[in-house]
Amino acid sequence: MSGMKTNAGNFFEDFTVGQVIEHATPRTVTEGDRALYGAIYPTRFAVPSSAEFAASVGLAPHPVEELIGFHIAFGKTVPDVSLNAVANLGYAECRFHLPVVPGDTLRTRSEVIGLKQNSHGRTGVVWVRSTATNQRGEVAIDWARWVMVHKRDASSPAPETVVPALADAVAPADLVVPAGLDLTSYDTAAAGSPHTFDDYEVGERIDHVDGVTLTDAEHMMATRLWQNTAKVHFSTEARPDGHRLVYGGHVISLARALSFNGLANAQLVAAINAGAHVAPAFAGDTVYAWSEVLDKATVDAPGVGALRLRLVATKGRDESMTLRGDDEKYAPGVLLDLDYWAFVPR
Amino acid sequence: MSGMKTNAGNFFEDFTVGQVIEHATPRTVTEGDRALYGAIYPTRFAVPSSAEFAASVGLAPHPVEELIGFHIAFGKTVPDVSLNAVANLGYAECRFHLPVVPGDTLRTRSEVIGLKQNSHGRTGVVWVRSTATNQRGEVAIDWARWVMVHKRDASSPAPETVVPALADAVAPADLVVPAGLDLTSYDTAAAGSPHTFDDYEVGERIDHVDGVTLTDAEHMMATRLWQNTAKVHFSTEARPDGHRLVYGGHVISLARALSFNGLANAQLVAAINAGAHVAPAFAGDTVYAWSEVLDKATVDAPGVGALRLRLVATKGRDESMTLRGDDEKYAPGVLLDLDYWAFVPR
Amino acid sequence: MSGMKTNAGNFFEDFTVGQVIEHATPRTVTEGDRALYGAIYPTRFAVPSSAEFAASVGLAPHPVEELIGFHIAFGKTVPDVSLNAVANLGYAECRFHLPVVPGDTLRTRSEVIGLKQNSHGRTGVVWVRSTATNQRGEVAIDWARWVMVHKRDASSPAPETVVPALADAVAPADLVVPAGLDLTSYDTAAAGSPHTFDDYEVGERIDHVDGVTLTDAEHMMATRLWQNTAKVHFSTEARPDGHRLVYGGHVISLARALSFNGLANAQLVAAINAGAHVAPAFAGDTVYAWSEVLDKATVDAPGVGALRLRLVATKGRDESMTLRGDDEKYAPGVLLDLDYWAFVPR
Repeated sequence: MSGMKTNAGNFFEDFTVGQVIEHATPRTVTEGDRALYGAIYPTRFAVPSSAEFAASVGLAPHPVEELIGFHIAFGKTVPDVSLNAVANLGYAECRFHLPVVPGDTLRTRSEVIGLKQNSHGRTGVVWVRSTATNQRGEVAIDWARWVMVHKRDASSPAPETVVPALADAVAPADLVVPAGLDLTSYDTAAAGSPHTFDDYEVGERIDHVDGVTLTDAEHMMATRLWQNTAKVHFSTEARPDGHRLVYGGHVISLARALSFNGLANAQLVAAINAGAHVAPAFAGDTVYAWSEVLDKATVDAPGVGALRLRLVATKGRDESMTLRGDDEKYAPGVLLDLDYWAFVPR
Repeated sequence: MSGMKTNAGNFFEDFTVGQVIEHATPRTVTEGDRALYGAIYPTRFAVPSSAEFAASVGLAPHPVEELIGFHIAFGKTVPDVSLNAVANLGYAECRFHLPVVPGDTLRTRSEVIGLKQNSHGRTGVVWVRSTATNQRGEVAIDWARWVMVHKRDASSPAPETVVPALADAVAPADLVVPAGLDLTSYDTAAAGSPHTFDDYEVGERIDHVDGVTLTDAEHMMATRLWQNTAKVHFSTEARPDGHRLVYGGHVISLARALSFNGLANAQLVAAINAGAHVAPAFAGDTVYAWSEVLDKATVDAPGVGALRLRLVATKGRDESMTLRGDDEKYAPGVLLDLDYWAFVPR
Repeated sequence: MSGMKTNAGNFFEDFTVGQVIEHATPRTVTEGDRALYGAIYPTRFAVPSSAEFAASVGLAPHPVEELIGFHIAFGKTVPDVSLNAVANLGYAECRFHLPVVPGDTLRTRSEVIGLKQNSHGRTGVVWVRSTATNQRGEVAIDWARWVMVHKRDASSPAPETVVPALADAVAPADLVVPAGLDLTSYDTAAAGSPHTFDDYEVGERIDHVDGVTLTDAEHMMATRLWQNTAKVHFSTEARPDGHRLVYGGHVISLARALSFNGLANAQLVAAINAGAHVAPAFAGDTVYAWSEVLDKATVDAPGVGALRLRLVATKGRDESMTLRGDDEKYAPGVLLDLDYWAFVPR
C-alpha cells in the first residue's frame, strides 16, 4: 500500500497533447528569498539590490531577480514533467510578463504541446508550455520546454508525433516591459557601470573575469529554495559516481551574477530565447562566464533598450571565449549556453 | 575573574523540583527564517509554502512550519538545561497551541518537574516542562523533556527522587486545532497529493523514497538559526573523533520534509508524543525516511482529521522499513524514531 | 573591446587627495539579512534577536546587528578602493550614527584623505574616509581605512605625501547613542547574563570558550551577502595555494558572536577604533575568541555605559589569552585584533 502514496513521476505514456497539469505547490516569495539569492550568487544588479534604485526607475514595490521567479516556477514542474527525464533538451519562448515582488504567490500549470517517441521505443520527447501565475491570476512568466523521458514500457504504442513550432528567439516586439519602467534618469554611477545601450555592439564579447568555486551546500540550498526535487542534486547515492549534480539553474544564476562585471546595466531579464546545459557541473568546479552581444533592439518605453545576449558559463576561465570548436561541437569546459534578452538604459 | 563571566551551564545539583528558569534570549521570527528553512530542508507542505493556500484554509497571517517554532523554543533551553548533558533521553506531551507567524517573538521558560540521581552518583536525570510564549504572553508551544546531566561532584547528596507521570501520547481530545482552520475546501492538487484522511490505514508504512546527503555547512547554519549553542555541533575540536555532531532537530526537520513524498497532506504538526535520537548523524551521511500510521482520530474542526505517525529517519535507505530487530533493539541505520500527530484533510 | 567593459579596479596613480568616489551599488537591508546573519554567526545578543526586547530599550523599528551595516557599507568600497590591494592595513574612527533597520537602503561614498608612495615605487598607501548614508541621506556609519595598492607603473611619479591624522580611539564624548536608547529597565535574564557595566574592570580578560570550525560555503555566503567581490574569497584558482581566503569581516562577526558568552550585555557596537587582520583564516580552522576590557566610560543616555574592548580571534583556543610574545609580535594563532566600543547597561 505504501508505494502508492509516493510520487513516481510521469512516464512518456502518461502524456497526451492538450493535457493540462496543475502543479503543486504554490509558493510565496519573500524578502528571505532575495537575501538567500544574494548570499548564494554574487549578484549586484542595482534594481533587485536596492528598493530606492528600483523606485527611481519606476519599479515599486521592490521586484526580486527575474530568475527567482523562474526557478520557483520551473521547480514546480519537475515532479510532474521531468522526474523520469533522461535529459532536459531545451527552453524557448520564455517571457517575464510582470515583476515578482515579495508577497506574491506563484503557481504553475503546464500544457503538453508536443510528443515524439524515439525510434528505439524506450524514450520519447515531451514538449510543454508552462505558465506561472500570481495570486491575482495574472501571468508572471511563461515558457516552453522539452525533455526526453523514459517510457514505462518499451512495447507500448507510440503516440501521434506532434512537434510544436517554437521561435528561435522572442521577437523584440513581444518583449514585455514592466509597467512604469522609465530609464531616462538612470543613475549609472549607482548601478556600477557607465556602459549603456549604445556602448554595446552586436558581435562583441565580454569576459566577465571572476570565478566562483562551487560547493555542495550552496547548490543544494539554492535548489531546495526552488522546491526542485530531482534526487541527483541532493544525494551521493543517486548517481554511480557519487557526485551531487549541480542543478542547471544554479549555473544560470551564477553566470548571470558574474556577468555584472561588464554588463552591470543589463538590469532586467526580459526573455530567455534558448538554453543548453552543455556539461554537468559539480562541487569543486570553478565557474567563469562570458557574454556575446547577439542583437540589439529598441522597445517602446522611455530610455529602455534591449540587448540579446549569449551567456556562456565555463569550467575554468576561457579568455579566448570559444563557444564551439572546428567540429562545431561545444568547446571543452563549456557548461551553459544561454540566449536571453535584457533591458538596459539607452 | 574572566571565567566567572561565561556560562558554565547547570549541573545536576543546580536543579530542584519546582524551580523555574527564564531562558535567554527572546527571538523574533521573520520571513527570513521561512526562507532559510526552505533552503536547508526540502519542505513543500502547501500551508507554510503559500500564504494564499494558508489563507484558503483559514490561516492568515501566514504561519511558518511548526518545527521552526519548536527548534527556536527548544534552543533557548540548551544553555540552562543541557549544556552539561550526557544524553537527551526523550520528549513527551509537546503541543502546538498557536501558529507562529513572522513578527512573533518567542521566549521560553522551564519548570523542573522531576529529578532522579543515577545509582553511580556521577549523573542524574532532570525532567523539565518548557513553555514558549509569544509577545502577547500566549502559550505557543509546550513540551516535557528529560536529559541526563553530569553532577558537579559525585559525592554530593542525592535529591529526593521525583519521576513525573507523562502520557505515552497526547490524547486526540487534547490536540489544539488552530483557530479558524477549515479543510473542507482543501485543494489536493495544489497540495501535491490526492491522499487524505480516509486513504491512510493504521499500520500502513510509507517509504518516502528520497535521500539527502548531509553537509556541515547546512546543519551548522540550521542549528545556529535556532540559537542552539551546544559545542559539539560547531567545532571539530569538541569530540575525540573530530566530527561535528548533527543537531538531532536537524534530522527531525529533514525527515519531516522528506515525508512530503507520501504524506503531502499531513500539513500541520499538532503534537509530538515521543522522540528518540537513536544514533548520531554526521556530514556525508545520506538520510532517508519512512513513516508508519500509528493511529487516526477525528477532531472538532471542519474537514480536519488527525494522523498519529511514526517518522523514522535512517542512514541509507531501508526499503524493508524495519524499526527494530529480533532483539528489540533499533535496527542498524535508524537515526530517529519520532511519534507525532499531524492534521490532515478528511 | 571586451576588456574595457569590466572593472579593473583603481591603481595607486588613480587616486588623488580630495577625490570623492560614489560607490555602486545601493543595497536595501531586509529581514532576510538578519536571518542569514543568525544562520552564519552564533549571535544571540537580545537587541538584534528580539523586536520586543529592542522596543523595551527604546529601539523600534527593530535594528539589525551593527556589523550587517558595516559589512554592506564596506563591501561597496572594495571594487573601487581595494580590488588591487596588496594588504588592508587598518581601520580607524568608525562610528555607528544610526541603527540600521530592515527597509533601509545604504549607499557609500569615499573621499581620499591621504597618499604615500612606498620607497620602492611599486605600491603606495591610500587613506580613505568612507561614509554610508541611508535613503534619507542621513549618515549611518563612517570610518577611515588605509590600504596598500599596486601602482600601474612603477616609474610613474610619486604624489605629494599626505598622511592624515587619525585618532587612536573614538573619544567617549564622540560616541553616538541611538535616539531613544534607555537601558534603565534592561532585563538581564532575557539578555542572558547578569553582568553589567560595574562588573567589568579595565584590564580584565574573558575567554569566550566556544569554538566554531569554518566552512567554505558559509564564509562565501556571508561575503556575497555584503556584495564584497574580492576574488580570493570565492575561487580556488585565485591564490597559489588553492585555498579560498576567508573575508576578514567574517572573522570579525564570528568573534563578536562568540563574545556573547561573557559579554552578552555588550549589546550595541558603538564604534570601531582599530582593527588588524593578523593572519589569514581558511575553511577547517576552528576559531575561538577572547576579550580584554581596555577602557570604560559613561555616556549621556539613561542607564547606558560604554566598554572599550579588545576582541581577539584565534585559530585554536588560547586559554592564556596572549596577544603578543616577548618579541612584541602577535602570538601564533592570533587572527584578529579588534578595538571597539560597545554600549552596555549600567
